[in-house]
Amino acid sequence: MDPIRDVLLDAPLVRDRGGDSLQRQLLNRIRDAILDGRFPPGCRLPGSRGLAVDLGISRNSVTAVYEQLGAEGYIELNRRGTKVAALGRSRAPTTPGRAAPLRLALPQLSERGTRVVSRFADAAETLAFKPGVPALARFPLSAWKSCFDRAFKTAGVSALGYGNPAGEAALRDAILRHLAVARGVRCEAGQVVITEGAQEALNLCVRLVTNPGDTAWVEDPGYRGAQTAFQCGDLRVEPVRVDSAGLVVPADAWTAAPPRLIYTTPSHQYPTGGVLPVARRLALIRQAQACGAWIIEDDYDSEFRHTGELIGAMQGLVPQAPVMYVGTFSKTLFPALRLGFVVLPQALTAVAAPLLKETLRGGHRHEQLALAEFIDSGQFSRHLGRMRRLYRRRQELLRAALAQHLDVPHTVLGGDSGMHLTVRLPPEYPDQAIAEAARAYDMAPAPLSRFALRAQPEDNGLVLGYGNTSESQYPALVQRLARLARAQRLKG
Amino acid sequence: MDPIRDVLLDAPLVRDRGGDSLQRQLLNRIRDAILDGRFPPGCRLPGSRGLAVDLGISRNSVTAVYEQLGAEGYIELNRRGTKVAALGRSRAPTTPGRAAPLRLALPQLSERGTRVVSRFADAAETLAFKPGVPALARFPLSAWKSCFDRAFKTAGVSALGYGNPAGEAALRDAILRHLAVARGVRCEAGQVVITEGAQEALNLCVRLVTNPGDTAWVEDPGYRGAQTAFQCGDLRVEPVRVDSAGLVVPADAWTAAPPRLIYTTPSHQYPTGGVLPVARRLALIRQAQACGAWIIEDDYDSEFRHTGELIGAMQGLVPQAPVMYVGTFSKTLFPALRLGFVVLPQALTAVAAPLLKETLRGGHRHEQLALAEFIDSGQFSRHLGRMRRLYRRRQELLRAALAQHLDVPHTVLGGDSGMHLTVRLPPEYPDQAIAEAARAYDMAPAPLSRFALRAQPEDNGLVLGYGNTSESQYPALVQRLARLARAQRLKG
Repeated sequence: MDPIRDVLLDAPLVRDRGGDSLQRQLLNRIRDAILDGRFPPGCRLPGSRGLAVDLGISRNSVTAVYEQLGAEGYIELNRRGTKVAALGRSRAPTTPGRAAPLRLALPQLSERGTRVVSRFADAAETLAFKPGVPALARFPLSAWKSCFDRAFKTAGVSALGYGNPAGEAALRDAILRHLAVARGVRCEAGQVVITEGAQEALNLCVRLVTNPGDTAWVEDPGYRGAQTAFQCGDLRVEPVRVDSAGLVVPADAWTAAPPRLIYTTPSHQYPTGGVLPVARRLALIRQAQACGAWIIEDDYDSEFRHTGELIGAMQGLVPQAPVMYVGTFSKTLFPALRLGFVVLPQALTAVAAPLLKETLRGGHRHEQLALAEFIDSGQFSRHLGRMRRLYRRRQELLRAALAQHLDVPHTVLGGDSGMHLTVRLPPEYPDQAIAEAARAYDMAPAPLSRFALRAQPEDNGLVLGYGNTSESQYPALVQRLARLARAQRLKG
Repeated sequence: MDPIRDVLLDAPLVRDRGGDSLQRQLLNRIRDAILDGRFPPGCRLPGSRGLAVDLGISRNSVTAVYEQLGAEGYIELNRRGTKVAALGRSRAPTTPGRAAPLRLALPQLSERGTRVVSRFADAAETLAFKPGVPALARFPLSAWKSCFDRAFKTAGVSALGYGNPAGEAALRDAILRHLAVARGVRCEAGQVVITEGAQEALNLCVRLVTNPGDTAWVEDPGYRGAQTAFQCGDLRVEPVRVDSAGLVVPADAWTAAPPRLIYTTPSHQYPTGGVLPVARRLALIRQAQACGAWIIEDDYDSEFRHTGELIGAMQGLVPQAPVMYVGTFSKTLFPALRLGFVVLPQALTAVAAPLLKETLRGGHRHEQLALAEFIDSGQFSRHLGRMRRLYRRRQELLRAALAQHLDVPHTVLGGDSGMHLTVRLPPEYPDQAIAEAARAYDMAPAPLSRFALRAQPEDNGLVLGYGNTSESQYPALVQRLARLARAQRLKG
């Protein structure tokens, strides 16, 4: 018997095997046999005519397979027939000149990849008290869909290409107008860059103004997404404490660890809720200017202020402030939209253009155009108004439920804005154990200590997101949390 | 006169000024006066009752403004009235302890940002011969929209949240099945990670397996987006020449500049069109394994192979190959969709999970579900088939037009796959000048030399994208290119 024919005729080719044509099955059969050495280099394949008859397929198919194998370098074709090529495939991998250790596809995560630590357990968005999730069921789905349908119909195929890397002009203009009125942001449309949510905006800021090894200050406790972005950018992350009003920069910090980048949430410190007073904002801007540092102002949820007017952004406070203003529609509309933006300082806009062009790709253009219409038609403002009233009510009722049912010592921090309340607990009530125990009752509060890089005793408590948790459940949920807290209490 | 009252009553408050309430106008008027020093620290604001009468607004509004200013730290409120707070705002910025140079918001792009160079002129996607653009007008817009509408209706609000950072399970499964049949990729669904186009997939690969200063090999000439991703990740980018079959690694390169990462387009080298033979693929995998390097296989357009069957992917060639397989729907569907993916090696999947969770955010879930249906229902395969036939015809006709009308010495490279042909020109026909001159005639061919990091004399020519350029124009366009080439010819 001819061992080559044996392999080729080993099993019949099967019509309609999961979309695999007979031709492709034959191709893969020969490829596999060459790769695993059953068809050694130099051996000849049978003539196409005979093989076609034996396999019951057309001679053209066999010829096509042989040509394909030739194009891929598996066989050599010449007038005398086909010959299996030398693939240099031996069991023992050849070693290069230097004595390199033989590492065969080991899991080698990079050091920078290893630095990024996952700090919170996975939790479905439907779990109670999960922070950062807006009231998804209250989103005006059909109004949004109408905007999308109109954008899709109007722009059609003309919006299928990449588009402007910085985003659609209509959306940049709409954001500009909204920010000017609602947030006191001063900018021109050219400064607004649309990003894949706030996280890509942070990545962009890192690329624009930092080099590996630069120091970045983050609020402590603070938003861990910023820390991740900075670690991925190989920055030295330096925690700076916050007090009840936000970031507190020790006088010697500017010389001890001069920053290149400062991350702050001045309108509603995440997660402790402070509002940075204007004197401290001005001092921060002034010191940053003197030090050649850039400030990232993350204005993640300050559309939802529950007392008085909205707090103005730092960005508009001083002309030419070295502030990159970051915003997102994840909280004001919905997270899966993945649309955020950064307002670049005017001085940076022109020099940043090549980097934007090479690193951003635009896209999601129908979505961007739909959002522009949603804003311009006033539907966005109305939705914000409705959500502000909803969150205000939820906040008041959650506060009331805490006062009535959380019968362990605690302090409620902040709470004038947004979609979460942070409850500080004495150290003998360990927040991580409580949060873990709460999962059994479909609650996902976040332990305050996990937001801290250098946790202090006071960084113990629960961050309770009320955005997506219905107020009718608060009394029962808080009673449950109180029971869990008592159960987890450490004996002193 | 009281100078404070002068400022406050300087101009009337105007109802309905672009959505600004009277209250917000008063708030901003006082904020501005405090910030620019017209209301110095310590001075008192008028009583709310009198001011309300003078301005013709309600006393409640004035009280609300004062409370807001108090919350923001502009004024101090006590029983005796209001007092402007000390903001420490002097004209001369205070300098920190060390003698830091005073840099006031200068445009300071980072070094890594400066390294990224924009190599191609901006060009609308409608310009003739622009590479990388599929036939946008042939996209089955309404069939796609039906899938999207169904996904939107079925998933509704349940797909508004962040979702799985690695992507929707339905889409990962659909991609897995498609890749197994069409590309010979061997993987499990857990290895497929959905990304924001191929560029984010490259960024992810960089984060996963490299550290700053590591060496990355790129094909030269090659895809400049890979170079950008590697520069943003602070890698040492090392160009490696390609021949007519793709990447050629000099024997001493493994010791002279041992790579941590190797970027390659083996099924259709971009932009020179070679197909890497299987022996060279196996050798590359073997050497990479021995050296502890990872390979990125970018399979950007090999669904569009014009002769014979599709070339199998490197990824499935050897079990446990250190290959990260990157794909995109930008060419097969449309660029603005911004959906790409990477198939991680199985060995990396588990260790990569925390990094994926912290750096990716999922999202675009209705789009992902729509794409899963588009694939699973067979519409994707049918669309690919139609586009393959279209591109094959365009390629043949472009080839014919070049043979007939490009009456300057030239060689057509590659051309068995994809949506572009590369035409090599002798050095006396400078490709950049020709490409620039072509812009006046609404053509955007890309100069071959701009794809090279260390350009050789043979890296001179034009990359002609035919994906989005109608075949009826080819004779006239190529005649025009020939005239431009002759006009730009250097006198020797």
